[in-house]
Amino acid sequence: MKDYIKHDPWKIIEEGFVPEYNRISESLCSLGNGHMGQRANFEETYTGDTLPGNYMAGVYYPDKTIVGWWKNGYPEYFAKVLNAPDWIGLSIRLGGEEIDLATAEVEDFHREIDMKTGILFRRTRLRLNNGSLVELESSRFVSMERPEAGCFRYDLRLLEGEGKIEVSSFIEGNVHNEDANYNEYFWEQLGEYLDSDSEAILIKTKKTAFTLASRITTKVSLLASDGSASAVDSTGSEKTPGRVARSFSSPLKAGETLRIEKYNSSLTDRDHDADKLLEKGAAVLSDAVSAGFDTLKEEHIRAWAHIWDQSDITIDGDVAAQQGIRFNIFQLKQTYTGKDERLNIGPKGFTGEKYGGASYWDTEAYCLPFFLSTADAGIARQLLVYRHNHLERAIENAGKLGFTEGAALYPMVTMNGEECHNEWEITFEEIHRNGAIAFGIYDYIRCTGDRDYLMPMGMEVLTGIARFWKQRVNWSEAKKKYVMLGVTGPNEYENNVHNNWYTNYIAAWCLRYTAQCAESLAAERSEEYRDLASGLSLTSAELAEFKSIADQMYLPEDTEKGVYLQQDGFLDKEIKPVDQLAAADRPLNQNWSWDRILRSCYIKQADVLQGFFFFEDDFDTETLKRNFDFYEPLTVHESSLSPCVHTILAESLGYKEKAYEMYLRTARLDLDDYNNDTEDGCHITSMAGTWMSVVMGFGGLRHREGTLYLNPALPEQWKAYSFKLMNRGTLMRVSVSDRGIELENQGEKTVSLMLGTRDDAKEVTVEAGQTVSC
Amino acid sequence: MKDYIKHDPWKIIEEGFVPEYNRISESLCSLGNGHMGQRANFEETYTGDTLPGNYMAGVYYPDKTIVGWWKNGYPEYFAKVLNAPDWIGLSIRLGGEEIDLATAEVEDFHREIDMKTGILFRRTRLRLNNGSLVELESSRFVSMERPEAGCFRYDLRLLEGEGKIEVSSFIEGNVHNEDANYNEYFWEQLGEYLDSDSEAILIKTKKTAFTLASRITTKVSLLASDGSASAVDSTGSEKTPGRVARSFSSPLKAGETLRIEKYNSSLTDRDHDADKLLEKGAAVLSDAVSAGFDTLKEEHIRAWAHIWDQSDITIDGDVAAQQGIRFNIFQLKQTYTGKDERLNIGPKGFTGEKYGGASYWDTEAYCLPFFLSTADAGIARQLLVYRHNHLERAIENAGKLGFTEGAALYPMVTMNGEECHNEWEITFEEIHRNGAIAFGIYDYIRCTGDRDYLMPMGMEVLTGIARFWKQRVNWSEAKKKYVMLGVTGPNEYENNVHNNWYTNYIAAWCLRYTAQCAESLAAERSEEYRDLASGLSLTSAELAEFKSIADQMYLPEDTEKGVYLQQDGFLDKEIKPVDQLAAADRPLNQNWSWDRILRSCYIKQADVLQGFFFFEDDFDTETLKRNFDFYEPLTVHESSLSPCVHTILAESLGYKEKAYEMYLRTARLDLDDYNNDTEDGCHITSMAGTWMSVVMGFGGLRHREGTLYLNPALPEQWKAYSFKLMNRGTLMRVSVSDRGIELENQGEKTVSLMLGTRDDAKEVTVEAGQTVSC
Repeated sequence: MKDYIKHDPWKIIEEGFVPEYNRISESLCSLGNGHMGQRANFEETYTGDTLPGNYMAGVYYPDKTIVGWWKNGYPEYFAKVLNAPDWIGLSIRLGGEEIDLATAEVEDFHREIDMKTGILFRRTRLRLNNGSLVELESSRFVSMERPEAGCFRYDLRLLEGEGKIEVSSFIEGNVHNEDANYNEYFWEQLGEYLDSDSEAILIKTKKTAFTLASRITTKVSLLASDGSASAVDSTGSEKTPGRVARSFSSPLKAGETLRIEKYNSSLTDRDHDADKLLEKGAAVLSDAVSAGFDTLKEEHIRAWAHIWDQSDITIDGDVAAQQGIRFNIFQLKQTYTGKDERLNIGPKGFTGEKYGGASYWDTEAYCLPFFLSTADAGIARQLLVYRHNHLERAIENAGKLGFTEGAALYPMVTMNGEECHNEWEITFEEIHRNGAIAFGIYDYIRCTGDRDYLMPMGMEVLTGIARFWKQRVNWSEAKKKYVMLGVTGPNEYENNVHNNWYTNYIAAWCLRYTAQCAESLAAERSEEYRDLASGLSLTSAELAEFKSIADQMYLPEDTEKGVYLQQDGFLDKEIKPVDQLAAADRPLNQNWSWDRILRSCYIKQADVLQGFFFFEDDFDTETLKRNFDFYEPLTVHESSLSPCVHTILAESLGYKEKAYEMYLRTARLDLDDYNNDTEDGCHITSMAGTWMSVVMGFGGLRHREGTLYLNPALPEQWKAYSFKLMNRGTLMRVSVSDRGIELENQGEKTVSLMLGTRDDAKEVTVEAGQTVSC
Repeated sequence: MKDYIKHDPWKIIEEGFVPEYNRISESLCSLGNGHMGQRANFEETYTGDTLPGNYMAGVYYPDKTIVGWWKNGYPEYFAKVLNAPDWIGLSIRLGGEEIDLATAEVEDFHREIDMKTGILFRRTRLRLNNGSLVELESSRFVSMERPEAGCFRYDLRLLEGEGKIEVSSFIEGNVHNEDANYNEYFWEQLGEYLDSDSEAILIKTKKTAFTLASRITTKVSLLASDGSASAVDSTGSEKTPGRVARSFSSPLKAGETLRIEKYNSSLTDRDHDADKLLEKGAAVLSDAVSAGFDTLKEEHIRAWAHIWDQSDITIDGDVAAQQGIRFNIFQLKQTYTGKDERLNIGPKGFTGEKYGGASYWDTEAYCLPFFLSTADAGIARQLLVYRHNHLERAIENAGKLGFTEGAALYPMVTMNGEECHNEWEITFEEIHRNGAIAFGIYDYIRCTGDRDYLMPMGMEVLTGIARFWKQRVNWSEAKKKYVMLGVTGPNEYENNVHNNWYTNYIAAWCLRYTAQCAESLAAERSEEYRDLASGLSLTSAELAEFKSIADQMYLPEDTEKGVYLQQDGFLDKEIKPVDQLAAADRPLNQNWSWDRILRSCYIKQADVLQGFFFFEDDFDTETLKRNFDFYEPLTVHESSLSPCVHTILAESLGYKEKAYEMYLRTARLDLDDYNNDTEDGCHITSMAGTWMSVVMGFGGLRHREGTLYLNPALPEQWKAYSFKLMNRGTLMRVSVSDRGIELENQGEKTVSLMLGTRDDAKEVTVEAGQTVSC
């Protein structure tokens, strides 16, 4: 845990340069716009420790799976998020000395990202070895308005000294991933291009053959001490394989500023014909250059203002909490914009290269509720369409494991619909993701009311998933129930367990929900449904089978303790609460062997409670409480997805202190480097959990049969808080303080909602434009 | 399954050349002498499909473990059996055309290994493209008498045509393993040496830094049609990095024979100082060359005669069975000679590079009984000393997993005592190997009576193992018993199960046996024991704890069915006998996904029956029968270690037909390429199981409290059979036919044994030199 980021409501600020924290700051101050992103690396040369990172959404490399004993059905590759060409690079020499924070004396240093504007800013004062004193100031962003463009302005002010300044501004395509085997390069160079006003490279990934065109224009000018500007002409350009550069040079006197404005366009053949990439990229770049830095910046800030208008959360009286929640929202919105149905939300977004793949079950279980409530419904729908587009691949994936007749198993991790993780205990066994994907459809419909999505997309996905569960269970003669053997639940600190309560429960739910949807569609839209069912060969006999399995599903339980069992045999473990563990043992995954973790009672994230989070209304409060009381003390929360669920449940059970403790744990996970791994990148998907902690936890948001419920409570550590809620096209602002609750309808339609708990709530109606205090 | 090997009592014969079978024949006809070995590759150039293989015992390479999600305690590397320099290579050109079975027309082909003599022989007649007709004949062996030397005689007889013959005889050190990543080379070249009468290379493995000196001398002569010989002088020698070669050339006429005799010495710094290797290698080689091919061959045949004298099994009336059993004995004796306590018995011996590592639990569970009964006790003792030498590493290995206070976990696979396999479900969980290692000590003592081994070596190993079990169990409040969670049993078609009956049983046995040994030693040799116990901090309280855990160990059982349960929850599976599976599904591991296999009831090798094999006398016949009847029909025998156990149990339960069926399955596994994988090498360790099938199965051999039991029965498919038995220094020959049983005491001491079953046996005494008929 670290505490070097300054607390500020809107900014992430690093004050003073600590080289050991550089990678962490690079992660925290990452930029992204859904199409591309980059870590907050320095523009100029830096020979100290850094993790260079530039990423293009959807561009990956399939690293071959290598395992001691290969078994049938193992996925063939592990998809790596690929480091892409670095377009920000500058090499600057003053009086012959390279500007480099690692070799100069850093007299002053300030790096920040302004979450309100999405602009990365840095100011630093350096004493060079040759005695010169310079101040650098850079402002950088990847445009939210023009996703294929990015730019920065970089001012070098000479405070003391005098000399020739030489600048080389380049694109470096010779990059590799840090964990590449034997420093293998994953890109092939296709060509370098030096035009009169721009330079470009064209490169292609090995094996996957994604083509990328990256192009830059650099404008350099000299600002006299009176502010008057004169252009500095280029002294030439050059190319080597995978690299292009343009040079500038000028004398520089104390008081003068060299201003560098660099513009980039990065386009891939995911969006354009490969043979048009250079041409299109030139057009995107030239438009950006014509608009100029200031205009691009204004557009970009406007785009962010719109995002914040829909999704901001304010917290009064706790700036650390305020900064934390905004950081989480900011990173989520940088990662996914919903503009490209082929994309999804990778665990590191654009902040690092660790963990391959672009989508996990996190998307449906954690991110979908966030996007459902903070953006137009179309964005959440894209996340559903993404899975529908992958249905055929999911059926193939199930086929590789021996499933037949249209059974679909969605991959645990994927880039393109294929499984791309490489551990059997996860890929074969962590099948609960299929449940979350079905639940996502349910969640989308209950929030948006868009039942059209079922016809045919939702029904096709649900049918594939239900057929998987139908084949995945088997009848146990011993139990006289359907059982599900050999699974890994959300608690990945167990593998290959039998009858994981969560998995069995969500499987039964999927089977029932699929049958329900089919039956109601058959009644409501009989003709259309008949065609759909016939295309899917879905008969009423099969629907009856779905329900019969669901009704006879085994759910492990200990009646004496009155708790559901995470899986068969859980009570054979030595049960000892987490608080009895020595501090030196925590986190377990850094201190215990995997062997010991598997055998222990300690839970990475609590499966039964995850089930309660989804299906809370299926259980009475006493049951929720007994299980929470049993599992919470055994949970180590070493999954970043864990604490938010505990906040929400604890709050609804009246465990205020626990709720707040868990909230703190999720909100500042990366900012305070809680798990000592932020240097690898931020935990993007779990950030949606922080939003859920506030809105569903303290705010009590629930969707029950088409009705919105709120039950806001004020944590005693806060003076007030507010959140935005997008519900069926109407934006609402919910403010909570010790004076009560204010509901402000910022939309154009009347909103009716229930205020209170599921058992005790009153209806409140808020007219468009009105604010109601309760 | 294939059937191209000719049936013969002593030889493995391939008649006619089928290129598709070449790799299989290369495996079957492999040579080895405990120190080094090689596949039966051709000496001359072969551009067709081949798996070149030369191996030096104990020389390996640690390939880095690569896994998607690294966890603490994962082994760092996977040890590869390393392909070593090829010293047999010849390039022969006749009239300018390279001799190559892939390009010439093969008119006749015969390859055989004579198991009686350990000599690989090949004769082939080739029509070259230039019209010449040649006959090649080669005889090759690696010397059993001089383990660092090998040689061959290669005659090329020109039958038709005339031309210049050019020979290049070389060592090729630029070799790599077939599965190497990106064809990476694992050897570094240290130097090449051209002397007047020999050529050598010195090379070193990367990372592990084993140094190897390989040296050759080649003698070429011309045999006229009347048999008179004249030397062919060398035309020069040459070297390139990692390669040395010497050339010869001569005119050759029809009726003349070019004879090439090539000698090799291969020495490593495992046995000599690295800086003396070249010198020592020159001496070994020069001695061999002085002795000459015929003398080396005689010595080698003599050494094999001695081996067969101690270990042969004869079977009358079934030549396929005779060939099968001899093949198994032959390969075992080629693989391990007991001369080097640092070596052990790798799963592929010297026949292939697949599967890393040199020792598995197979050694104690399968190979030890073979060596105990077919060689002097010193050889079996070496296998025990090997584990004692690794005790410290086993304690370190347990330490990496969080065990303390001298608990030892032997690696599942090792080269040097460190774990060198790389899958957690095997390395962390297949801990029953610890039990087999302890059982090996028990087995050794009951066969040899050598209780001295316990002081201190055996007791040190047993204590480390017992301490591991003590810490590995935990008390289950639910069961009020000690349980063992998260293990993989011998049946590797299940992973991470709880309360594996076999593992729990052998753990309890280990704990009890350790306490028993300690208590009896304390009584018998109190002073010595006191020192030992004090050195180990082994108190009577700890011994009491061992016994208490053993007494309260949970053993899963289904009282209704009257069977032990392989593990908790086994009866939740869909139980359907193997014979109801479609033929197309078999073998499962080539047709089903791992996922499906894990969930199924099908057993690779039956854990409970493996336990019965070790602890038969702990159970009454009805119990043995009920469990056999339950598990046998569920067993697919896809472990080569499985069928022999079933032969032995079936025979003792009176299931004659099943016993013979299982015998056939084990005896000709490689010869008939039963599992379609002999091309990768032979299944060496399971070969000991074939021996056990005959001697313990049909012969009924048991050791009970210092007494030898035999209960020979004659399979109805055989006319007669005999086996050799080395028991406490006395060699006995047991012959069984329809005329009865003959016991021939070939030793110098009187032998007393029990003839019959455990419940009904009579004592028989055989004087030295006498034969008794019963």
